[in-house]
Amino acid sequence: MSYNTFGHVFRFSTWGESHGPAIGAVVDGCPPGLSLSEDDIQPFLDRRRPGQSRFTTQRQEPDRVRILSGTFEGRTTGTPISLMIENVDQRSKDYSEVAQAYRPGHADYAYDAKYGFRDYRGGGRSSARETASRVAAGAVARLVIPEVSILAWVEAIGGDAIDPARFDPAEIGNNPFFCPDAQAAARWEKLVDDARKSGSSLGAVIACEATGVPPGWGAPLYAKLDAELAHACMGINAVKGVEIGDGFAAATLTGEDNADAMRPGSNQTGGPHFLSNHAGGIAGGISTGQPVRVRVAFKPTSSILTPVETITRAGEATDIRTKGRHDPCVGIRGVPVVEAMVALVLADQKLLHRAQNG
Amino acid sequence: MSYNTFGHVFRFSTWGESHGPAIGAVVDGCPPGLSLSEDDIQPFLDRRRPGQSRFTTQRQEPDRVRILSGTFEGRTTGTPISLMIENVDQRSKDYSEVAQAYRPGHADYAYDAKYGFRDYRGGGRSSARETASRVAAGAVARLVIPEVSILAWVEAIGGDAIDPARFDPAEIGNNPFFCPDAQAAARWEKLVDDARKSGSSLGAVIACEATGVPPGWGAPLYAKLDAELAHACMGINAVKGVEIGDGFAAATLTGEDNADAMRPGSNQTGGPHFLSNHAGGIAGGISTGQPVRVRVAFKPTSSILTPVETITRAGEATDIRTKGRHDPCVGIRGVPVVEAMVALVLADQKLLHRAQNG
Amino acid sequence: MSYNTFGHVFRFSTWGESHGPAIGAVVDGCPPGLSLSEDDIQPFLDRRRPGQSRFTTQRQEPDRVRILSGTFEGRTTGTPISLMIENVDQRSKDYSEVAQAYRPGHADYAYDAKYGFRDYRGGGRSSARETASRVAAGAVARLVIPEVSILAWVEAIGGDAIDPARFDPAEIGNNPFFCPDAQAAARWEKLVDDARKSGSSLGAVIACEATGVPPGWGAPLYAKLDAELAHACMGINAVKGVEIGDGFAAATLTGEDNADAMRPGSNQTGGPHFLSNHAGGIAGGISTGQPVRVRVAFKPTSSILTPVETITRAGEATDIRTKGRHDPCVGIRGVPVVEAMVALVLADQKLLHRAQNG
Amino acid sequence: MSYNTFGHVFRFSTWGESHGPAIGAVVDGCPPGLSLSEDDIQPFLDRRRPGQSRFTTQRQEPDRVRILSGTFEGRTTGTPISLMIENVDQRSKDYSEVAQAYRPGHADYAYDAKYGFRDYRGGGRSSARETASRVAAGAVARLVIPEVSILAWVEAIGGDAIDPARFDPAEIGNNPFFCPDAQAAARWEKLVDDARKSGSSLGAVIACEATGVPPGWGAPLYAKLDAELAHACMGINAVKGVEIGDGFAAATLTGEDNADAMRPGSNQTGGPHFLSNHAGGIAGGISTGQPVRVRVAFKPTSSILTPVETITRAGEATDIRTKGRHDPCVGIRGVPVVEAMVALVLADQKLLHRAQNG
Repeated sequence: MSYNTFGHVFRFSTWGESHGPAIGAVVDGCPPGLSLSEDDIQPFLDRRRPGQSRFTTQRQEPDRVRILSGTFEGRTTGTPISLMIENVDQRSKDYSEVAQAYRPGHADYAYDAKYGFRDYRGGGRSSARETASRVAAGAVARLVIPEVSILAWVEAIGGDAIDPARFDPAEIGNNPFFCPDAQAAARWEKLVDDARKSGSSLGAVIACEATGVPPGWGAPLYAKLDAELAHACMGINAVKGVEIGDGFAAATLTGEDNADAMRPGSNQTGGPHFLSNHAGGIAGGISTGQPVRVRVAFKPTSSILTPVETITRAGEATDIRTKGRHDPCVGIRGVPVVEAMVALVLADQKLLHRAQNG
Repeated sequence: MSYNTFGHVFRFSTWGESHGPAIGAVVDGCPPGLSLSEDDIQPFLDRRRPGQSRFTTQRQEPDRVRILSGTFEGRTTGTPISLMIENVDQRSKDYSEVAQAYRPGHADYAYDAKYGFRDYRGGGRSSARETASRVAAGAVARLVIPEVSILAWVEAIGGDAIDPARFDPAEIGNNPFFCPDAQAAARWEKLVDDARKSGSSLGAVIACEATGVPPGWGAPLYAKLDAELAHACMGINAVKGVEIGDGFAAATLTGEDNADAMRPGSNQTGGPHFLSNHAGGIAGGISTGQPVRVRVAFKPTSSILTPVETITRAGEATDIRTKGRHDPCVGIRGVPVVEAMVALVLADQKLLHRAQNG
Repeated sequence: MSYNTFGHVFRFSTWGESHGPAIGAVVDGCPPGLSLSEDDIQPFLDRRRPGQSRFTTQRQEPDRVRILSGTFEGRTTGTPISLMIENVDQRSKDYSEVAQAYRPGHADYAYDAKYGFRDYRGGGRSSARETASRVAAGAVARLVIPEVSILAWVEAIGGDAIDPARFDPAEIGNNPFFCPDAQAAARWEKLVDDARKSGSSLGAVIACEATGVPPGWGAPLYAKLDAELAHACMGINAVKGVEIGDGFAAATLTGEDNADAMRPGSNQTGGPHFLSNHAGGIAGGISTGQPVRVRVAFKPTSSILTPVETITRAGEATDIRTKGRHDPCVGIRGVPVVEAMVALVLADQKLLHRAQNG
Repeated sequence: MSYNTFGHVFRFSTWGESHGPAIGAVVDGCPPGLSLSEDDIQPFLDRRRPGQSRFTTQRQEPDRVRILSGTFEGRTTGTPISLMIENVDQRSKDYSEVAQAYRPGHADYAYDAKYGFRDYRGGGRSSARETASRVAAGAVARLVIPEVSILAWVEAIGGDAIDPARFDPAEIGNNPFFCPDAQAAARWEKLVDDARKSGSSLGAVIACEATGVPPGWGAPLYAKLDAELAHACMGINAVKGVEIGDGFAAATLTGEDNADAMRPGSNQTGGPHFLSNHAGGIAGGISTGQPVRVRVAFKPTSSILTPVETITRAGEATDIRTKGRHDPCVGIRGVPVVEAMVALVLADQKLLHRAQNG
């Protein structure tokens, strides 16, 4: 089944292909009375927009969003909010080779296996271009959770990680890598340039932190906050791993080392005073009032100029080099996408919590 | 919101608390005409059953499943299958302390924050006992996907990993750890014993492989096969991380090293011949015909005898030692649970695929 | 697909067959902290219980409900509430003929066409016995909406209607027909007796009114309050028609006659003062604060002693007389079922409204 | 909650307001490979389009549909199909009075009660203009069920019914009323003209028949085919009643008169030979192979020129006359809308049936 809707009560559905006339999202279930205009959404799209440095695809898309419904006199009405972004800079001719053979690591073969054929232009529906719709929807979600601040950054590219001791959130906007460590950012310039020039690509790890989430959000047992975040983030193009809090490292700790001890007092969210946050702000699938922490692994871009062995649609052996314009490290532009997905999950869980608990 | 149903068309809902009279699952959407009796379910419950070695909790539960509906003359009728497991060996008096103070790392505080109070006996709804219901439902799911074989094992305990070169699936059933490496199993005896005796606990990593999944299962974009698996596994008690294929390691590879090259010919599922499986059998959220591979990180059991700083319900400082009977490494018994969740996701995706594609 | 769950955030799933060991419902999403015991549910089941007069089936079922989960110390915990009712008085031998031939008007043929076979004992899953689960779940739903009073009654049997001028709610409990008009109740004794004795059956119309519903419940456009009520009531066994407010009669009115004029002032729900209630308390799919009014048409019981032409499973012509124990007018016992479904819809819509609008 | 999605596996979501820039629908879950262009959709929109006779609103909308996604080289790809219809002929100045006071029978008051304010221009989201989105989505649904023919017509206007003996499907397209009885159509000209000229409005009854539905569609118990149809049709603007088969008349029949006797042989759908169709083609919530029959009651248009007593937003008494352009009988244009909703339900149920039963 095609299944293009996410969320339980705060929901969004996305549509559109890389080289169709437009892409978009319909946000449903938004509370009424929130101030909303295109200006609330555009800055987030601008952060994700391609073509802003030599480290991302050179496709030039203004990514201007239009609100087609759901607001009146500048406020949300409670009815569906239709968001549309026109595609401007398609070069479909670049994809003639992709039409005939499968890019390893890409969705090409899988789509053909499922649907019998596919819109191969720019990857069609499987293009990372779809994530613009998520970012637009996520901007609306943020308005639903003004108590929460969400910040993501790149933690590693191609295995080269930041130094946590040099973490400075103010640096994140100062470089084209969303990197909070100025020294790492400097190293990554060369790293990504080298990959780009050699026709290769690199993976990345994104970290995201949501502060201000009050205790009590999340829905045991099959809409647990951590499970929903894992679903949301693993569904982003190119993602292969998700961790909450210490993640896989927690599997190496003892129970007493992993325990987040509690002390009297409270933090900004009304939760208790915790002495650590191994859990990433979630216990039993429910927020504890600590910062919610997620880490997301992006594989390297599958579309590369380096030739790779593959087969044609007819099953014959061939090599493929993916021309066209691609991100040398698709994880970089994943930063605003991860933030958006986290916002969308949290907005939904806030409303779900309110439904049951008033 | 409480949200105790999982799945789109093949769905299950679970109910029950650790110390209530029973727990259970209702499986809905199961195809008709499948041969099903308690004997098809019981072996999976027996694998997960506590009290079978000194390395798991000593609670003695026979975990006998009863089918209360949905079959007739030994076959599924297409109507809901109600599965019930009675709780036999509750010792609620063990939990007087837990009633008054919060176990760090456990759901105690979060449940109180969400619901205002909680059934503290044995963790109530947040107990890992609920996973028996998942295992029972998963046994039904397996009948829906006879073309698929699902096998999970413990890959590491407390940071001590198996040696892949000694991987032998036949070993998995030969030790109380679901360990495919006989030497590692021997080491883990002491490791887990030490943790148990010292009142501590250990984390674990579980790996799971589903072979025989044909190309085409999965539902772009918001019920992607990988996203559904991440959701399913991150929702298991104590899980903090999920990887598909190479997972976080993929973020350190180059595009050409991560590409799973394709060659003419086909595997057992009808998919092409792949030269590697970094992707874990999923591309673009859709199965490729290769084995589907998932890795899951379990944190150490939160309920430990070692005292930990915490607060009471009234917000006062205290220490807590969790008496009662607990798994020194809850990840071990996670093996049949991970298998069950993978089966449940795959059964659902098979039916979803059939709905759209006939 | 089998689809045995109803509701969006306040949800229930039912399971069980007429002649299986038990039937039941799992209620999910219930707010925490509500006082709930079997005694809150049993009275509603007792109203629906068979065998209480000669005007219903003589099957003797105590219909004792057990709460298996979801409460602690007498209050709902916010986790799933599992309700079970054992089947006691099955006489499966009565159904040998039904196994071989299809009762016209019954689900026999349709189930075989869909599933390939069926549990023919007492109608299996298609039995009106399933409605006991709805009534049990509905009793929980009522606790969620204490501001609402729900009352249903029989308005007509076999085309013989009550006189609205003699409507007296106090009469409803005074006769075996849930009839608010004492004179009609007297006539119906003979009417139903005659049908029963002649091996025939009769249809009925049930009316239901929910007072106290505040303005604003309902979810445009595809979970409109009226659409949800229509769904809920049309899904009850034997129902063939649903009306909101004036229903089909509204199609004969002019716009000015159908308009419910408003005047300053307010009613008990905080809504405005209306001069009439043609709309049945719903406009644009949203409650107006007026009483919500639904009418439901039940066809005559399909299982009758009078022989009817039909075919066997093998497609051969035969006649069928349905022995066994059946209601001469299944609509009568539909009264508590309609009340339950209305309660379940309203509880769900209350929580949905709160989710979006706080 | 706003809830603007309908369907289980074949789903559609609609968005848009009467006086916004556009309205639209996103159809998700459509099988791949179906031939689809705007030309497959436009004829259905044209049938519903306003301004084609003096018997409908004079608003001039070309209602040109654009497909923005989900097709490639003229065929559906299995990904979401985004349909957009621009609004062209808004005259928002007509609605100044509606902004201040509530039209009785309309959604004005209810929306304000729910959301705190509303887009009053043309009724905003509650406008019947939204039904164009349903008709567009319904045209796609028809492609999924080529085995089914769906035909609706007006059976009565203002209580003046057609003569069944003069029923001629070929007449339906010959008059502006979708009337299958030429004599009734002639009477209705005067009837509707009189209502229009006097500033009044009329209700209508629509009948719809779907032939070719094979036995086995429908999903017991909470997505029964009849319940889904009731939900779909009761959710159309202005609808107050829904009947399946004989509907309320069935409540006046005896069991033997209501039984649809079966004889050997089969009809076009492979179902048995039935001697009657009181059931409207549905038994136990599942199709029997007979034509599926639905009747739908539309109330008279609420927006009328005749003054009606009402209140202002501030709660003060006033009278309201609704200027602007309105249908004197909104039920007439309900014909293509009912057809669309029936098609949407059947497409969904076909896929659901296939999911479970292969």
